[in-house]
Amino acid sequence: MDEVFEPLRWRDLDYFGHVYHGEYLTLLDEARGSWLGGAAGGPGLRDPETYVVARVEIDFVSSLTREDRGVHIGFVVERVGRTSLTLRETMRGGDGREVARVRSVIVLWDRVAAGSRPFDDDERARVEALVAS
Amino acid sequence: MDEVFEPLRWRDLDYFGHVYHGEYLTLLDEARGSWLGGAAGGPGLRDPETYVVARVEIDFVSSLTREDRGVHIGFVVERVGRTSLTLRETMRGGDGREVARVRSVIVLWDRVAAGSRPFDDDERARVEALVAS
Amino acid sequence: MDEVFEPLRWRDLDYFGHVYHGEYLTLLDEARGSWLGGAAGGPGLRDPETYVVARVEIDFVSSLTREDRGVHIGFVVERVGRTSLTLRETMRGGDGREVARVRSVIVLWDRVAAGSRPFDDDERARVEALVAS
Amino acid sequence: MDEVFEPLRWRDLDYFGHVYHGEYLTLLDEARGSWLGGAAGGPGLRDPETYVVARVEIDFVSSLTREDRGVHIGFVVERVGRTSLTLRETMRGGDGREVARVRSVIVLWDRVAAGSRPFDDDERARVEALVAS
Repeated sequence: MDEVFEPLRWRDLDYFGHVYHGEYLTLLDEARGSWLGGAAGGPGLRDPETYVVARVEIDFVSSLTREDRGVHIGFVVERVGRTSLTLRETMRGGDGREVARVRSVIVLWDRVAAGSRPFDDDERARVEALVAS
Repeated sequence: MDEVFEPLRWRDLDYFGHVYHGEYLTLLDEARGSWLGGAAGGPGLRDPETYVVARVEIDFVSSLTREDRGVHIGFVVERVGRTSLTLRETMRGGDGREVARVRSVIVLWDRVAAGSRPFDDDERARVEALVAS
Repeated sequence: MDEVFEPLRWRDLDYFGHVYHGEYLTLLDEARGSWLGGAAGGPGLRDPETYVVARVEIDFVSSLTREDRGVHIGFVVERVGRTSLTLRETMRGGDGREVARVRSVIVLWDRVAAGSRPFDDDERARVEALVAS
Repeated sequence: MDEVFEPLRWRDLDYFGHVYHGEYLTLLDEARGSWLGGAAGGPGLRDPETYVVARVEIDFVSSLTREDRGVHIGFVVERVGRTSLTLRETMRGGDGREVARVRSVIVLWDRVAAGSRPFDDDERARVEALVAS
């Protein structure tokens, strides 16, 4: 599976020396924007960072530490809605071990209208082509 | 239900003017530590901020904005394991509306051993007394 | 001196167990907005959180830790410009010891014009009345 | 001048669409650790991320936005103390424009002793060789 790489920052660590669990959502968000924009086999949406997150389920499988210089994140499309996308997301540490298993539901956003927006036909075709069979 | 109040910071806002979705985990974490320590009817564990988060399911129901000066967070015990606790968590905005519904699984941590630790008998009695019937 | 109190969060700690030095700017910013809005003897500007920071000088005098449940921040006006304000800011820990000495220059911001804005006459009178003699 | 590149994250933006001013310290810190460890002509200290920040002076010259995919940070040694280092730091946006001018004083840290530590002879020779003439 193609993956997006996100470098870690020292500030991502918490007092335990682990990447803080809340930072996983920041790292996922950053990688997801790249993937939605076309990186790592993503669909290439027209405004890939303009979405809101409606739901996240995340299992923290192992700790990320400073030894991991970054995290590898892969995406699989599970379901396409009118304005939303359900994704399976996998986070791996620098050595390839699984650090988190995630399911996220995102909703495309229209900044001007301050509300959700539907996929256009071209975008819909691109994301539907990626639905895991 | 008793609730812990957490004030928001301007920096919690993202470019959309909403509290960033990843910050919800920070706010939950902060309130959970207070509650585990005995605030808002919590059990009063002996080291209430020393746990790791194993799993989070979160539904983002409505946006938190700067109008909300803070968030009210309530906790219900769903299940007690040997070293872990499953909690139902509800986040409400300044006006009382629901902003997120959460289920979290946390594991008690032993900083010195860098591993999980079981509840002691007294702690177990306290958390079991809180299991929702 | 009147002071604004800002509670700390566990996430403010870094791997050393100190409040991360970059978070001091977040804490200052949060307190400054309250003070500009009229808290702790502040001037009561009409849009107290809409400014940009042009310069900061900060001496980190002692570490903030989790023992400090929050930080006390006091403000003194050093100089009033057409669109800017130079402030002396002092941060104190929970026990009253000094943790940082700061000088900040801020510039009033106009979100719509995306540029600086001058003080209006009423605001100017209020901030000039606070200039330290 | 050699420079360290730090990629930005969407979460670095604030409500104004600018990288939040407090995040500049995180970006500087991250780049400084790499440089101290030997990147971009840095001295190659033995424990390059284990220091505390004693003082920062920062002029925010222009805004960083999402158009800037990252920031370029260059370092010049101004002064070497027994346990401390004074650095001139320059931040540039994606297009090379200056975004901040900084002077930082850092102190080498000993995690075990929880106190400052002096440069060893080898480290001292390396940093003194970098003092700007």
